[in-house]
Amino acid sequence: MFNKVLIANRGEIAVRIIRGCKELGIKTVAVYSEADKEALHVEMADEAICIGPAKATDSYLNMHNVLSAAIVSGAEAIHPGFGFLAENSMFAEMCEECQIKFIGPKAETIDAMGNKINARKLMIEAKVPVIPGSDGEVSTMKEAKEIADSIGYPVMLKAAAGGGGKGIRKVLKEDELEAQFQSAQQEALAAFGNGQMYIEKIIYPARHIEVQILGDSFGHVIHLGERDCSLQRSNQKVLEEAPAYGLSEELRQKMGAAALKAASAVSYENAGTIEFLVDQDNQFYFMEMNTRIQVEHPVTEMVTRVDIVKWQLKIASGEVLTLSQEDIKLKGHSIECRINAENPSFNFAPSPGTVSNLLLPSGGLGLRVDSAVYNGYTIPPYYDSMIAKVIVHGETRVEALAKMQRALSELVTEGLLTNQDFQLDLITHPDVLKGVYDTSFLQETFLPNWNH
Amino acid sequence: MFNKVLIANRGEIAVRIIRGCKELGIKTVAVYSEADKEALHVEMADEAICIGPAKATDSYLNMHNVLSAAIVSGAEAIHPGFGFLAENSMFAEMCEECQIKFIGPKAETIDAMGNKINARKLMIEAKVPVIPGSDGEVSTMKEAKEIADSIGYPVMLKAAAGGGGKGIRKVLKEDELEAQFQSAQQEALAAFGNGQMYIEKIIYPARHIEVQILGDSFGHVIHLGERDCSLQRSNQKVLEEAPAYGLSEELRQKMGAAALKAASAVSYENAGTIEFLVDQDNQFYFMEMNTRIQVEHPVTEMVTRVDIVKWQLKIASGEVLTLSQEDIKLKGHSIECRINAENPSFNFAPSPGTVSNLLLPSGGLGLRVDSAVYNGYTIPPYYDSMIAKVIVHGETRVEALAKMQRALSELVTEGLLTNQDFQLDLITHPDVLKGVYDTSFLQETFLPNWNH
Repeated sequence: MFNKVLIANRGEIAVRIIRGCKELGIKTVAVYSEADKEALHVEMADEAICIGPAKATDSYLNMHNVLSAAIVSGAEAIHPGFGFLAENSMFAEMCEECQIKFIGPKAETIDAMGNKINARKLMIEAKVPVIPGSDGEVSTMKEAKEIADSIGYPVMLKAAAGGGGKGIRKVLKEDELEAQFQSAQQEALAAFGNGQMYIEKIIYPARHIEVQILGDSFGHVIHLGERDCSLQRSNQKVLEEAPAYGLSEELRQKMGAAALKAASAVSYENAGTIEFLVDQDNQFYFMEMNTRIQVEHPVTEMVTRVDIVKWQLKIASGEVLTLSQEDIKLKGHSIECRINAENPSFNFAPSPGTVSNLLLPSGGLGLRVDSAVYNGYTIPPYYDSMIAKVIVHGETRVEALAKMQRALSELVTEGLLTNQDFQLDLITHPDVLKGVYDTSFLQETFLPNWNH
Repeated sequence: MFNKVLIANRGEIAVRIIRGCKELGIKTVAVYSEADKEALHVEMADEAICIGPAKATDSYLNMHNVLSAAIVSGAEAIHPGFGFLAENSMFAEMCEECQIKFIGPKAETIDAMGNKINARKLMIEAKVPVIPGSDGEVSTMKEAKEIADSIGYPVMLKAAAGGGGKGIRKVLKEDELEAQFQSAQQEALAAFGNGQMYIEKIIYPARHIEVQILGDSFGHVIHLGERDCSLQRSNQKVLEEAPAYGLSEELRQKMGAAALKAASAVSYENAGTIEFLVDQDNQFYFMEMNTRIQVEHPVTEMVTRVDIVKWQLKIASGEVLTLSQEDIKLKGHSIECRINAENPSFNFAPSPGTVSNLLLPSGGLGLRVDSAVYNGYTIPPYYDSMIAKVIVHGETRVEALAKMQRALSELVTEGLLTNQDFQLDLITHPDVLKGVYDTSFLQETFLPNWNH
């Protein structure tokens, strides 16, 4: 096992990883921007190194500074968390060149899955169902029109290098196609330096269901069941559950098997997630693979009792994944609510500030809060607004929902605006209580009728 | 299910019960002394009623005031927690007379088990092994000498009504017997108004292993496995584990079966605990039954995932205990450390005060903190000094210990003296790491060598 690991991240995920390291007896190095001097991850790590000014591009995204911090501190490995450098294959390669282990898949796996046209091809070869669409890149308008005609409007235009909602356009009818294609392509070129585009059918209504994968460096891959992440606002997940409610055991098995095929196709190493869309007829389609730990990993940990972050560390250090697929039993039901410092009454605008009186929910059976906030902490305005994840586990979904309601009611964050009431209203909405919702629910049903 | 429950307690157990009620949709009534106006249980309950001055005898032990609060608020049931009125059969009876459900066993069960001479008799009849000793009350010195001779010195003199370490004396040799007998009897008379005494052999070295019981009002009784509570200081438990480390499956089954016999002998209803001593030859002996929820119930909840407090409420409201013995599977290992506001360098003297900066451990998989402390809270000097329970669950005991070490290291309680460092040193002691300790370990091995 490693002696010392550098965590190239901030916020709750940095704290989560430091906690995992501590439990494995690994020394930790935090990195931080000038705006994060007072952050909890800095306080909790054994060492902390400032890597630049507040702006992420000058610090958390500055690969040279992060690597220098690792070299100077003698860290043998870097855990990138999620966001920032987590899916940057160049950074993974640079780590390798410096003989520092990147805790994640190999650089070529990140690349293979990062280019979505390539990922689609790989999945088709691996016989994993993909969303009907273009075979590969669509380079001319003629081609685009033919494909859109053949799959039928509305269609989705997507950039191969897409991410964060950029380079994506929904096209309702043919006469919008050309303008949207050009606009998306230009956006993708500007954002990623890559204008490759492809077309997919729009699966609607659909549930976003993803499968958690763990693979070691000896070719052993398992899945840890699925999560339903259909509750999204502006492509951002808001609440996640495991397992997916009402999913038949047969479909669960099929999706798990497909996820294993997908991961095996790229000899996947470490933790990753295969995201699927599931339509009303229970057909499922590969959407993309996230080659990193995800925000919502705790719900899987709660129902499987497998510590994914610890396994990331063990696998990266060369340990054998000793869990077999048969060891993985989903027990009970888990839900996660993301608590953000934001103003729901002002289009969820980030709302940084100082927590003058903080009480995090706790106690009782099956409650967990992953957070990096403490009493008196000032949330800096430079980074994402998520400040805590409230995670519950119950024997049943009904019990989990009741526990979440109790937990959210306990939360006190005086001095901050958060989405606490929004989440409380969401989990008590009849459709959410019934477990009947798809990816459009939040935007099209819940928000237009939300009285707050 | 009840609409409204009054919680006749304070501190973390009151908060724990309120949380359980909230998750079941039950309205809660807190009671509080004048010293507890600012307590968390008062803040969290739907209603709160002051029941008298700071001194417990004037408030939390004042049966009339507690009952009046229940009647005034319209509570249908009273949860007594532990301590205070939890094992007071007169209070249970008074509740019944007022047609308020006492959440616990029937008054006659409390009585039957509360008198330890009587409990011994019942256990002998039920064929549950008891500690060798007198058949019943020992009323003369002649009798005492004969029995002590027959079982051999050292022996233990005990008051039938004993509790809290009162009326108990260890007698090393015959010439001490008379003086100790009289002193213990007088103490018992003064404390309990009952001078009945009995004699038991001293089981040494021994482990304190107890079995958690749940029984409903239809005669269905199950056990939830055992806890090892051998780490004690002055008869106070300090750290508890579930399951008991190194206990053979055979012995676990045997002790579970004995506990079921014990509970069935008194048609036990609600949650209770059968405490045993286990000697070096794996012989086990009934010590006593606690007819209430215990401080250490969370470690059982963590390994069984059964919410004991919720079951207490359900059973009391007349629900059937739907769990069968086969449903109960112990998974992983759980440890609880009691965090007290006390000064370990001054013989663990209670050390009340104000928490000026509080950070409770949290996050990651398998960590739970049951507490009633918040930032800025002033711990009143009138009640017991326990301020939080840190509870961990790991796949193995080794993992649980590592997690506890991580959790205790995170705890910040500026402004207070606590036993945090003592607990940290305890869980990293070689014998505790190995899991090799008995009830004498803390007092005779650990403390004399503890450098702090």
